[in-house]
Amino acid sequence: MTDTIMLAHGGGGEKTNRLVEELFLSYLNDPVLRQFDDAARLESMVFTTDSFVVSPLFFPGGDIGRLCVSGTVNDLAVMGARPRYMSLGFIIEEGFPIAELRKILQSIRETADESGIRIVTGDTKVVERGRGDGIYISCSGVGEIVYKNPPGFSRIAVGDVILINGSIGLHAAAIVAARGEFGLRAAVESDVAPLWPFLESLSGYDVTFMRDPTRGGVAQTLNEIATATGMDLEIGETEIPVSDPVRGLCDLLGYDPLYLANEGKVVLLASPRDAGKIAETMKNHPLGRDTRVIGLVRSPSGKRGRVLVRTLVGSQRLLMPPPGELLPRIC
Amino acid sequence: MTDTIMLAHGGGGEKTNRLVEELFLSYLNDPVLRQFDDAARLESMVFTTDSFVVSPLFFPGGDIGRLCVSGTVNDLAVMGARPRYMSLGFIIEEGFPIAELRKILQSIRETADESGIRIVTGDTKVVERGRGDGIYISCSGVGEIVYKNPPGFSRIAVGDVILINGSIGLHAAAIVAARGEFGLRAAVESDVAPLWPFLESLSGYDVTFMRDPTRGGVAQTLNEIATATGMDLEIGETEIPVSDPVRGLCDLLGYDPLYLANEGKVVLLASPRDAGKIAETMKNHPLGRDTRVIGLVRSPSGKRGRVLVRTLVGSQRLLMPPPGELLPRIC
Repeated sequence: MTDTIMLAHGGGGEKTNRLVEELFLSYLNDPVLRQFDDAARLESMVFTTDSFVVSPLFFPGGDIGRLCVSGTVNDLAVMGARPRYMSLGFIIEEGFPIAELRKILQSIRETADESGIRIVTGDTKVVERGRGDGIYISCSGVGEIVYKNPPGFSRIAVGDVILINGSIGLHAAAIVAARGEFGLRAAVESDVAPLWPFLESLSGYDVTFMRDPTRGGVAQTLNEIATATGMDLEIGETEIPVSDPVRGLCDLLGYDPLYLANEGKVVLLASPRDAGKIAETMKNHPLGRDTRVIGLVRSPSGKRGRVLVRTLVGSQRLLMPPPGELLPRIC
Repeated sequence: MTDTIMLAHGGGGEKTNRLVEELFLSYLNDPVLRQFDDAARLESMVFTTDSFVVSPLFFPGGDIGRLCVSGTVNDLAVMGARPRYMSLGFIIEEGFPIAELRKILQSIRETADESGIRIVTGDTKVVERGRGDGIYISCSGVGEIVYKNPPGFSRIAVGDVILINGSIGLHAAAIVAARGEFGLRAAVESDVAPLWPFLESLSGYDVTFMRDPTRGGVAQTLNEIATATGMDLEIGETEIPVSDPVRGLCDLLGYDPLYLANEGKVVLLASPRDAGKIAETMKNHPLGRDTRVIGLVRSPSGKRGRVLVRTLVGSQRLLMPPPGELLPRIC
């Protein structure tokens, strides 16, 4: 461990994992905290928290307001829980324009209504000019588990089918394009959206696991599953939906879309028995129109679970977990 | 409303109230959010959130770690709820020393153990150097109401006795002294402490209302009660415990101790029937040794509830709500 915090410690990749495992968990050793879900399961409730430090605050397809509600809702929804209540903690920099705060609040309001979550408590702190970055929003959410058989790592079995509800990488690509750093003006909008009530429509089926692939993208989510279960995951490169603008941006900047953040996607594992019905139900919802089966869970070939990508020409490559510093930095 | 956010918008005084009422509540109009408690009551649960942006991070009597757990625990405890679960959201500035993070985590751990709350979920973001102030911590907490007759504004009645569990102003004074801004080195320690299980010992009595007087101090809490109930509150200036170092600091800097923040105090209202037993029980606990009866709830003399201070010479003065910018700024 280094002596000071580095940007990579916040990137959501390997360095973040090491900070959490070696430092945070050495002090805060609750068995629930150790489960490494993005929300804590407590009796019939789930509880989640996330801080939003995105730049720019407004981007094609959304803003920090829509992002913070969607992020909170999605962390609850993928636990098979109906999002019930959330809190908002604002850390605002002195001098921040009230007009921008209005836009953000309007967006929070609309996204909360869309998902059915209620904002019931909040807090505001103002920090001196130069000691913040416009606005940071910390959100926590409480949900009520409504899936009869709640999804989770322990329910994953060999043969499970891996699905995703549409094109990947849109959020990260929209942020990169909105920054204009590379002189790019890609016609790409963030996919940021609350995944409930979309995921509620699947509550009667045998969904074994769900996770929203945000920081670190689909590669991060699949590697977490492989590590937690010890099983191999095999995905087909050509099965993964990637839109043309995202593909173009990746080719230009040397990114792999599998590592790009999403904010309206779910990686879903289903028993082979229910996978067909699940895919059909997903395709009938606006948020799942481009749903695809992207792979399968296989028996492990080695001591540890791995993620294998079958390429267009039939060869296989290993999909590694994201490195420490995730590129592009989007939070 | 101004066009940009001012420091006073975060001070917890009148400007914060106006920001919340005129702006936040115009967008986020949940009836629970409108109740203006520091925690939201949801069926048998309470839910609270707070962000901690204190400077310095380490001060006599505590640090930001002890502060953030105590603040979360206390917001739940004063609702008559056992603190059950909390989340931690870290926003850390690039370059922050790991050694300081260790001290903060150790302190979080100890304070959580002291109060019985479990830390079950968390999140870490790192912001670029110059875009933060070392470390901000956002906490949310979930509690379970265990008071048979949970305290709340609606239970307050004329004749209720007002108590406090010890000397006021210690936290704000410790922060001011720790900053060394005025060349002061007062021998004063913050009172920061988790008020549960202390307040659990009162759960069988007729406690009608509790609130921890943090930002804006006892003056803020009493004015909130007067506004919410429409009743007058009368307190005796000589009954309010103020330690010599706090008194000295206030004389020197022109502060009124009634406006100074506390982090281990509770303003408690009790029915006249139970007030004696409650005071006795409080005095038997280390956190309540200096408990005093400081006043009474009276019938309103005008259209709106007011807070009246009976002075040493027998005259009465009106105790106004804190103004926009609270001095000293401690968060």
